[in-house]
Amino acid sequence: MATALLCFRSTGTVLVAAAGFTATAIHIRRANMESVKKIDVSKFMATPITPVEKLSKTSNDMRTRMELMIMRIQADFVRALEGEENFGKKFKVDRWERKEGGGGITCVIQDGDVFEKGGVNVSIVSGMLPKEAVQQMRARGKAMSSDGELPFFAAGISCVIHPRNPYVPTIHFNYRYFELVDNDGKKMWWFGGGTDLTPYYYNQEDALHFHKTLKDACDVHDKKLYPKYKEWCDKYFTITHRNETRGIGGIFFDDIDTPSMEECFEFATTCAEAISPSYIPLVKKHKNDNYGDRERTWQLIRRGRYVEFNLVYDRGTKFGLYTPGARIESILMSLPQTARWEYMHEPDADSDEGKLLKVTRQPIDFVKLLSK
Amino acid sequence: MATALLCFRSTGTVLVAAAGFTATAIHIRRANMESVKKIDVSKFMATPITPVEKLSKTSNDMRTRMELMIMRIQADFVRALEGEENFGKKFKVDRWERKEGGGGITCVIQDGDVFEKGGVNVSIVSGMLPKEAVQQMRARGKAMSSDGELPFFAAGISCVIHPRNPYVPTIHFNYRYFELVDNDGKKMWWFGGGTDLTPYYYNQEDALHFHKTLKDACDVHDKKLYPKYKEWCDKYFTITHRNETRGIGGIFFDDIDTPSMEECFEFATTCAEAISPSYIPLVKKHKNDNYGDRERTWQLIRRGRYVEFNLVYDRGTKFGLYTPGARIESILMSLPQTARWEYMHEPDADSDEGKLLKVTRQPIDFVKLLSK
Repeated sequence: MATALLCFRSTGTVLVAAAGFTATAIHIRRANMESVKKIDVSKFMATPITPVEKLSKTSNDMRTRMELMIMRIQADFVRALEGEENFGKKFKVDRWERKEGGGGITCVIQDGDVFEKGGVNVSIVSGMLPKEAVQQMRARGKAMSSDGELPFFAAGISCVIHPRNPYVPTIHFNYRYFELVDNDGKKMWWFGGGTDLTPYYYNQEDALHFHKTLKDACDVHDKKLYPKYKEWCDKYFTITHRNETRGIGGIFFDDIDTPSMEECFEFATTCAEAISPSYIPLVKKHKNDNYGDRERTWQLIRRGRYVEFNLVYDRGTKFGLYTPGARIESILMSLPQTARWEYMHEPDADSDEGKLLKVTRQPIDFVKLLSK
Repeated sequence: MATALLCFRSTGTVLVAAAGFTATAIHIRRANMESVKKIDVSKFMATPITPVEKLSKTSNDMRTRMELMIMRIQADFVRALEGEENFGKKFKVDRWERKEGGGGITCVIQDGDVFEKGGVNVSIVSGMLPKEAVQQMRARGKAMSSDGELPFFAAGISCVIHPRNPYVPTIHFNYRYFELVDNDGKKMWWFGGGTDLTPYYYNQEDALHFHKTLKDACDVHDKKLYPKYKEWCDKYFTITHRNETRGIGGIFFDDIDTPSMEECFEFATTCAEAISPSYIPLVKKHKNDNYGDRERTWQLIRRGRYVEFNLVYDRGTKFGLYTPGARIESILMSLPQTARWEYMHEPDADSDEGKLLKVTRQPIDFVKLLSK
């Protein structure tokens, strides 16, 4: 299997003219990081999808800033995960192009000592959004006048990590920026995203650490955000036919376009930067915990539930599967290496497995717990 | 785990008055079997869902005849499969009732020596069909005037068997009878069903045996049926996002209501009776074949594809998951005990695995092969 280094062609650094827009202090901080200084792509997992020359010339454009932000987050998180592997296992990096426009960088780890299977995927795609997708967006409240296909642009990072040890939770996150041009030429844009955790055993200390890290990130922007997005997350990640949530939640938001593009980007960036601190400590803490067949079997049964959610309900997965020219292997990298289904499996309510199940059937009020 | 015997409460046999309807010779043969003689429920896997007294009094009603036919097929197939287990493993039998009306008998085998996981499920349900389901039916061409909820009745048998040995194919079949009463009081009815095979390795002799058995069953009724339903099957069992069929097909039909109710029932019955002869010989032939890790891993990857098809595309599964009060464990018994996903797995085209893949990407013309 090729490592990241084999697939990476360094393009060095490129100078970008200083941006002249007016902004608050926090915006300048971010602008400094993403666009005012040199574009240093040497640490990215692969050459960005958009040519570096174009990125340099459009450094204030949200498309550029989003692409650079998610490339940075991808590289940081991949390296942080690789740092936890006990025997040096690396991610495989695939840079792919889409004939309809754009492409992506898929980083996948498989058969690691610590991570059984996982992927961190960046995609920058544009072209015509199929009619069905436009209709779906209208159905969820987007104010488009057209219900036919429309030109779009999307930049996003998505990730699912399935560790081997049943005491290390699975993490998923996704942050995306979307642009759409309506029939009358009006450009619409929005951000969406979220980070959520799927433990196989419930550990209150871990859960609090995870949720507190996300809450702190939200609180930087507005104290109202964490309670709202925590609730949205529980609602979204529900396996309706089981009456269970997929895991213990986190935050989830979509169609965000207020108070300003700048602040939405800031918020998405702060959340994305909170991923590693929310998760890596849990990996370090549990990656060498002892476990046996019982815990492994339970983990695989819960992974079956993960598959059920992703294939039956997840909007992103469905959007991908129904999009012509989509890269199926990048979409389905979210599926675990192994999953299990047992007929009528119901653990004893007092067992550790039963306790996890209880939490998925009655989400914990982390808002209350964290306000103490 | 309880065995069939533990769950079965025998209700003996009940005498039914001879039916006086006019019918052709083949219809009389069937009527004799299903309704004219005694209703002998002693060999069924459990007491029928409809009280035996009611079945006796309505022996000419299609609801009754269908219920008795699928109960007989269930018992015959379950016993035939149990006969192949090397160490006496039995199916677990769950008889369940649905508060909205009706119920079912779910027979599941798990951790058998020959069958890793499988289920043969009968359900007899009635009540109000949800609006969404009615709209779906209209969308596929049913001429209902209403698009709100409607009273319905459905009797069906469905089955998926996942054997342990990778040289024994997975079989799936489903035969069903549906009644719907439109707003204006008009009763609509139709039959649907099919049997299809999902091998892990392609064996031409096995494939020909399977398809020929189905073709012979169809030919009893009309020589045009096999070519038509073989093609429908390939089309239905397509994993669109992979551009693969699920397996090597078989037959599939839906919304059948001509030339007459009697002949549709005859056809469904002949097909259902062809299940055992199409499949059991393949189990006998391969259940003790040697295999290793390579074959097992490939089998699990193909089972991942099975999960993808069932959760993303299968109409029956989706109908079940979205139906309030549906028995989830009976719907999802179709999922394998274990499934596997590997990133970018592509076997060598000349390997035995590659040959199977080729068959799923370019369905074999069994109509032509069998006409030689």
